[in-house]
Amino acid sequence: MTSIFVGSDLSYAVKQRTSFLFQVAAATTPHQRVRREVMHASSGARVEECAHGELDNRMYRVVSDPGDFALSYRAEIELSAEVVDPNELDEIEHPSLPAAVLPFLNPSRYCESDRLMRFAYEEFSTVAPGYSRVKAICDWTYSHLDYTLGSTGPTTTACDVILNRTGVCRDYAHVAIALCRAIGIPARYVAGYAVKLDPPDFHGFFEAFLGQRWFLFDATRLAPVGGLVRIGTGRDAADVSFATLIGSAALRSMRIWAVDADPDDELLREPNTAAAISTA
Amino acid sequence: MTSIFVGSDLSYAVKQRTSFLFQVAAATTPHQRVRREVMHASSGARVEECAHGELDNRMYRVVSDPGDFALSYRAEIELSAEVVDPNELDEIEHPSLPAAVLPFLNPSRYCESDRLMRFAYEEFSTVAPGYSRVKAICDWTYSHLDYTLGSTGPTTTACDVILNRTGVCRDYAHVAIALCRAIGIPARYVAGYAVKLDPPDFHGFFEAFLGQRWFLFDATRLAPVGGLVRIGTGRDAADVSFATLIGSAALRSMRIWAVDADPDDELLREPNTAAAISTA
Amino acid sequence: MTSIFVGSDLSYAVKQRTSFLFQVAAATTPHQRVRREVMHASSGARVEECAHGELDNRMYRVVSDPGDFALSYRAEIELSAEVVDPNELDEIEHPSLPAAVLPFLNPSRYCESDRLMRFAYEEFSTVAPGYSRVKAICDWTYSHLDYTLGSTGPTTTACDVILNRTGVCRDYAHVAIALCRAIGIPARYVAGYAVKLDPPDFHGFFEAFLGQRWFLFDATRLAPVGGLVRIGTGRDAADVSFATLIGSAALRSMRIWAVDADPDDELLREPNTAAAISTA
Amino acid sequence: MTSIFVGSDLSYAVKQRTSFLFQVAAATTPHQRVRREVMHASSGARVEECAHGELDNRMYRVVSDPGDFALSYRAEIELSAEVVDPNELDEIEHPSLPAAVLPFLNPSRYCESDRLMRFAYEEFSTVAPGYSRVKAICDWTYSHLDYTLGSTGPTTTACDVILNRTGVCRDYAHVAIALCRAIGIPARYVAGYAVKLDPPDFHGFFEAFLGQRWFLFDATRLAPVGGLVRIGTGRDAADVSFATLIGSAALRSMRIWAVDADPDDELLREPNTAAAISTA
Repeated sequence: MTSIFVGSDLSYAVKQRTSFLFQVAAATTPHQRVRREVMHASSGARVEECAHGELDNRMYRVVSDPGDFALSYRAEIELSAEVVDPNELDEIEHPSLPAAVLPFLNPSRYCESDRLMRFAYEEFSTVAPGYSRVKAICDWTYSHLDYTLGSTGPTTTACDVILNRTGVCRDYAHVAIALCRAIGIPARYVAGYAVKLDPPDFHGFFEAFLGQRWFLFDATRLAPVGGLVRIGTGRDAADVSFATLIGSAALRSMRIWAVDADPDDELLREPNTAAAISTA
Repeated sequence: MTSIFVGSDLSYAVKQRTSFLFQVAAATTPHQRVRREVMHASSGARVEECAHGELDNRMYRVVSDPGDFALSYRAEIELSAEVVDPNELDEIEHPSLPAAVLPFLNPSRYCESDRLMRFAYEEFSTVAPGYSRVKAICDWTYSHLDYTLGSTGPTTTACDVILNRTGVCRDYAHVAIALCRAIGIPARYVAGYAVKLDPPDFHGFFEAFLGQRWFLFDATRLAPVGGLVRIGTGRDAADVSFATLIGSAALRSMRIWAVDADPDDELLREPNTAAAISTA
Repeated sequence: MTSIFVGSDLSYAVKQRTSFLFQVAAATTPHQRVRREVMHASSGARVEECAHGELDNRMYRVVSDPGDFALSYRAEIELSAEVVDPNELDEIEHPSLPAAVLPFLNPSRYCESDRLMRFAYEEFSTVAPGYSRVKAICDWTYSHLDYTLGSTGPTTTACDVILNRTGVCRDYAHVAIALCRAIGIPARYVAGYAVKLDPPDFHGFFEAFLGQRWFLFDATRLAPVGGLVRIGTGRDAADVSFATLIGSAALRSMRIWAVDADPDDELLREPNTAAAISTA
Repeated sequence: MTSIFVGSDLSYAVKQRTSFLFQVAAATTPHQRVRREVMHASSGARVEECAHGELDNRMYRVVSDPGDFALSYRAEIELSAEVVDPNELDEIEHPSLPAAVLPFLNPSRYCESDRLMRFAYEEFSTVAPGYSRVKAICDWTYSHLDYTLGSTGPTTTACDVILNRTGVCRDYAHVAIALCRAIGIPARYVAGYAVKLDPPDFHGFFEAFLGQRWFLFDATRLAPVGGLVRIGTGRDAADVSFATLIGSAALRSMRIWAVDADPDDELLREPNTAAAISTA
């Protein structure tokens, strides 16, 4: 059991009346508990919470008039990750996959798995199925891409990144997800906070479905997966954008943090751990 | 209330053991009732039915050994479409949209609305919001594309089609969906059977969310929307492919039909009707 | 006859030994004469001039060691544009086109005319052929795009821009060129200096082949075509980049100007003139 | 010195008056001589020969009225390929490249080298420069793609193929050209006839500029480069399409052949030879 303090302060200059949809609050799952939290919007704007069913993403809607607008979120999260021996994690044959995970085999906006079938087959069909295959996909992604801030944009897709060979965390996740799906492993995008991420920011990572459960992976190796606090889950980054704006507003500043209460926790020690970790 | 007989006979030459996932059975919704139906697989193969939660898509899974494989489905469907005066159908402002429809504003694999924001704004921002705006998007799609069988493939996207100006029903739906989302109207893909479609085939059309409900549209004008029998609903065609194959099998023949019991039914008389119809 | 003073000062911080290829010097054509010019490189670097045959592009090559590097060019140019009545300018039927212009019907990196055949046909086949058709293509480009600095990048293509509806001068030229080629009119990219361009910068425009000669067009309407001083000509911007770098250097500052000697010159008075102007 | 008999019979059903541009006749270069040739068009249609300057591509223009139209070409070609020790072939540093080859470093429609800079650098920067690097690019292309007729179309690009991992000869050439340019080696597309190609067809291969001359490569390994008879040369396949049609006509049949007079000729013995061969 790990306790992690997360938070984000977002500040905007609103030019015209703007409707915001924020996904910054930590999710509740069987392995992630929100012990306490505060969400605060400046200037008395009314914040409405809603959730999107299947994936339990918590969303906050606020409408702001022109002027300054700030949103602050802070929470204490209790993580009780399930740690599993990777060798026990098989891939599930298609006919045995739970119906609920089937959509995560479909291509999505930023993960064009339908264009990468041969690619995935040629690169990964000879790797042992199961956890090791997802690991091989993460390793391929890690070693073929350069992590470069600003090298990609909001419409960049996995195929773009495989060609350009550079990206940021969301791009790493998209590439790995697309390759997993192309080889037949359900995979989905997770947005969250990450302990030890430097510089601190929101983080994008992914889950693959192995042995009847979703397991966490981070192809960037920038943060220990044991310290990832889930905000939301989706087909790809399109589903869990931290802020969606209808109107006109400019982001002025942004501060994000994730700090573990116990610096000696083993699960939080280093990125790219050998253990299989599930928090879903 | 309309009664429609639908069915499909699919036949495959299976080369290696193949896992099939079929989406050919009619859905059950408040406005669509399956009065009777038969699903039959050749050679005693066990057909397992499963459903994908949120969108109530019924899926059939079959594993077939090498040899001939055939699936037959026939059903009698009762449709009680809700017919509404289009003038009453407003667009819902973003902050008032139900959380469940928000994902249908996101871009998806074949509907890259995130690349079409300005496009949609320039072409449709001056049209009156509501039903008339979705109609304008359908009209634009209809008048700018040529319906040409074989002109597109399984990886063709809305952006491809907007440039190439040609496609089939799924492409028309993808273009209209992408433009709706880009202008702020939730939209989703619907696969189904269609009375009066000539030649008979599975059909792809779409729904837009207006006035707190999903309404049917068919930018192809090939069949009356009152005679559309829903198989399934999704972000785009990726979610409701009539057959997904893992293994090796070739489609040998395919026969699809949709016949209305009452040839005088007004709702089934012609494509491109002026009434707003909802069956979801 | 018009006299125009043009120039550019480019300054770089060279990190590693870098090979530069500059295309900033004015071309010599039957209608454009370089009366005097100076090219100066800082720090005694040897500047080698070379030219690329068919299109008479003058290129300067310099190798610079790490440190500061600056290139200065200034010239006095004499333009004697041929002004023609647009009504006399027909399109040439394909079998009568000179062999030398045929490559300018082919698609190129940033002008994917092969993907825009139906698009061009649907939008422009009913417009009277000749100068009026190219004008209609310019008008379409002008009215459908927003001129937004920074909205596109070096790999942005005409198809991207037609979807995104925004770009800068090179993008406007690429769109117009692609549409011209798609409808059967040879078109090529021209890079140059432009009188009255505000803010001053290098400019990208294009030429279409009509009535046995190349005529100038500027879909941006940002500068009078009579005041365009050609640097070079190519299939698209890839051929006439003002600076190509092999090595590692950062552009530190850039100053460009084009000033006409006679402020009363009619040809330089306003963008989007009705006269057809040729300088090739 | 090798003697090769080449020819092509093309037959069309012309629906509307159609203007054809054929590139099927063998080129003349210092190493390739057309000893005799016959070009014959059915029905007395006048065939006009023209050539496109810089690259010496011979083109034939014919206008045909509706009805049947056939073009026959046959020729005896004398090849005196220059065979060089690959170890002597260095890459030329950018500042020393002849100006005439510089355009072949630029990206083109089907060879988007500008999107593949990092890709090429990561995969090939550690390979010894010169012939061995181009060979490594050919080997990569050969081993990562599946040769599958019909898997690609006329608008397929190198980037598409690198993702899809399948293509035909023109796609292999485009991939290799794009990677060469991205790593700094000028490369261009060559269309031609190929001895021992099975089934016989027009062939697409490429040349890279090494040691002050263009050398032939064929990443498909389908035919010995010593038996390649050049039709034309270009930036990519867009420049040397064997037939361009303006009008409406359907290809009805097509027969192509290339037979060597001396079956013992060493240069024609097998694909993927170790010798460096130049015919330009």
